[in-house]
Order: sequence, then C-alpha cells, then structure tokens
Amino acid sequence: MAGDLILLAAVSLLSAFQQCHFAWLVGKSRMKHKVMPPAVTGAPEFDRTFRAQQNCVEFYPIFLTVLWTAGWFFNQELASFLGVLYVFARYKYFHGYIQSVKGRLTGFYLNLMILICLTTLGAAGIVNSFLDEYLDFSIMKKLRKLS
Amino acid sequence: MAGDLILLAAVSLLSAFQQCHFAWLVGKSRMKHKVMPPAVTGAPEFDRTFRAQQNCVEFYPIFLTVLWTAGWFFNQELASFLGVLYVFARYKYFHGYIQSVKGRLTGFYLNLMILICLTTLGAAGIVNSFLDEYLDFSIMKKLRKLS
Amino acid sequence: MAGDLILLAAVSLLSAFQQCHFAWLVGKSRMKHKVMPPAVTGAPEFDRTFRAQQNCVEFYPIFLTVLWTAGWFFNQELASFLGVLYVFARYKYFHGYIQSVKGRLTGFYLNLMILICLTTLGAAGIVNSFLDEYLDFSIMKKLRKLS
Repeated sequence: MAGDLILLAAVSLLSAFQQCHFAWLVGKSRMKHKVMPPAVTGAPEFDRTFRAQQNCVEFYPIFLTVLWTAGWFFNQELASFLGVLYVFARYKYFHGYIQSVKGRLTGFYLNLMILICLTTLGAAGIVNSFLDEYLDFSIMKKLRKLS
Repeated sequence: MAGDLILLAAVSLLSAFQQCHFAWLVGKSRMKHKVMPPAVTGAPEFDRTFRAQQNCVEFYPIFLTVLWTAGWFFNQELASFLGVLYVFARYKYFHGYIQSVKGRLTGFYLNLMILICLTTLGAAGIVNSFLDEYLDFSIMKKLRKLS
Repeated sequence: MAGDLILLAAVSLLSAFQQCHFAWLVGKSRMKHKVMPPAVTGAPEFDRTFRAQQNCVEFYPIFLTVLWTAGWFFNQELASFLGVLYVFARYKYFHGYIQSVKGRLTGFYLNLMILICLTTLGAAGIVNSFLDEYLDFSIMKKLRKLS
C-alpha cells in the first residue's frame, strides 16, 4: 500500500517544503522593505512577493487533490513527474512575479497546463475505476489484454 | 482499497475543479473592473468577488479533511452526498456574494451546517474505530448484530 | 489499514475544528470592531486577528501534508503527538497575535520547530521506504534486528 504512494508522498513533501520557503521569502521581503505585520502592503516589490505567495497558497490544496487523484487512480509515476514539474513552474512563477507583474505569466500558464493535465488524468482514472467497480468493465484491463 | 474511496476522490476532484473556476472568475472580474495585479481592491463588485473566493480558499482544506474523515471512518456514500451538497452551497455562496454582501448568507449557513454534519460523522466514526481498535468494542458491529 | 491512520485522522479532525474556530473568532472580531465584509482592515486589533487567521490558513495544508507523511512513513504515534503540539502552538500564536504583534512570536517559533521535525521524520521515512521498495534495503528493519 505505502509503496504505491511513495512517489506521491515524496512530491507532496517537496511541495510543502517549497511553500514554507515562499513564506520565508515573504518574511525576508518584509524586513527588506520594512513592512511590519499585520500590514500586507507597502513597497511595490513586497506587494508582488506577497501576492505571489498568496496565489501559491490558494492553489496548493487544489494541486495536492489533483496530484493524488491522478496518481492513485491513473498512474503514480506520470502524476509524480507532473507534480515535480508543477513545483518547478511555481518556482518560475514566484521569482518571475517578484521581478515584475508580467514576469509571473510564463510560470502561471505552465502551472495551469499541469493542473489541467492532472485533473484530466484523475478524471479518466476515476471514471475507469468506477466502471470497473460498479459495472465490472475496465477500459485499462481491456487495453492491456489487446496489447 | 481504491474502491472504498472512489466517491470521495470524485467529489474531491469536483471541488478542486470548482476552486479553479472561482479563481478564474476572480481573474475575469479583474479584467472587467480593471484591477491590475498585485492590487486586490478596487471596484466594490471586484472586492466582493475576491473575498468570496478567499473564503472558499480558507475553508477548502477544512472541507477536504472532514469529508475524507467522515467518508473513511463513517460512511462513504453519505459523506460524498454531503460533499456534493457542499459544492452546491459554495456555488450559492460565491454567486450570492458577487450580487451583494447579504447575498452570501444563504450559501454560507448551508456550508456551515454541512461542515458541522461532516465533522460530527467523522468524530463518531473515529471514536467507534478507536474503541474497536484499542478496546475491541464496536458500536456499529453491535448495532448490525441487533438488527 | 484504517487502524494505522486513526490517530492521524483524529489529529486532522481536531485541527480542522480549530481552523473553523479561528474563522469564527475573526467573525466575532468583525462584529466587535464593526468591520463589515468585504473589508479586511479597520481597527488594529481586528487587523491582527485577521492576519493571525490568514497565517494559520496558509500553513494548514503544509501541516496536514507533513503530518500524514511523517505518520504514514515514519511513526504514527510520534507524528500525532507532534500534531497535537502544533494545534496547541497555533492556539498560543493566534491568541498571542490578538494581544500584540510581538505576542505571536512564541507560538510562531514553536510551530516552525514542529514543522521542521515533522518534515525531517517524513523525509527519513520516505527515504527508508524508498530504499526498502526499490533496493530491498531497510534501515529500520536492520535497526530492529540489531536491538
């Protein structure tokens, strides 16, 4: 059981670490621009850093949900690979956004595409498991038999 | 194993899709009211749309936690049904809040009631599993034996 | 299966309840200081309460991820104990922050230390499971054999 999910768990842990790192960079930006809590606006660079982190926070549970669904019901290796790509795209997004508002776009669109892929894989896996479970009909098994 | 959780995974994927949709609607509202990132205030309608999404974001991991606890330890079908109801209530909340501050209340109270139900089912399921696991005493098994 | 995770589920449910409680305290602070939605600033005490809750929201999915990874791949009892400690530290943080900006620090550093512990345990557990799964070499099994 645990073995089937180890790559997913590793990617989740990596992404959790990245989220902590982003929060820490916001703290550093607070110091640099002297934006004292509880304020969340001040210098333009701080504002961008803070918004970048907030966007990562908003999408983090969505990412985890589609990662695990795709990995559990479709294919663990493929989902984990996309998960690592997502972590990289978030890195691009975050540091691009700190540079400029436009700089966030490359990472943002990459993130979006990965989320769409993971959601599609997850949905396909669930539909297949559903057919298999309730109607005893599995597309994946049939494909395997054919090949 | 996967079969025991397929409905929960389907509801989770549906709710993740809804969260993405809300984020997209905030983006659309940004365009409409010309609120450029990283700003998060501007026109009153945009402010309400943004706060509606933020509230959904805040409660999303809470929802997932109580959904899976209730579904795993109490009853998957009942928890999934409540989960779908939650997605519907979030829809009511979000679009109500865009209309007016008061418009969010119906959806909000419905969401709250569903969270209370799921938390109660989850707690009941955990207490029962705990008694079963550590004290070898299961209320559910006894109820089944009686009926 | 469920028995291996019951403590983690119980801690998760407890923390979900705490998050709801924090959201409710923000609502109460809104009433007290007459900060009407969708506004999120007004009186200094309300601002601190709101930021305290926002910080808890940001770290909640991170906490759940490292709690489950540490509990699943390292040791459930130890991870759950650290999880309960985290809930207590969040309580300290939240109520400390309401009092003053400096008041948040004790709870904050405690939270951070717990997150570092859980991440370390999770990483150790994953590396061990990985070696066991793919290279048929388990440090934990060897330690058990020695003792």
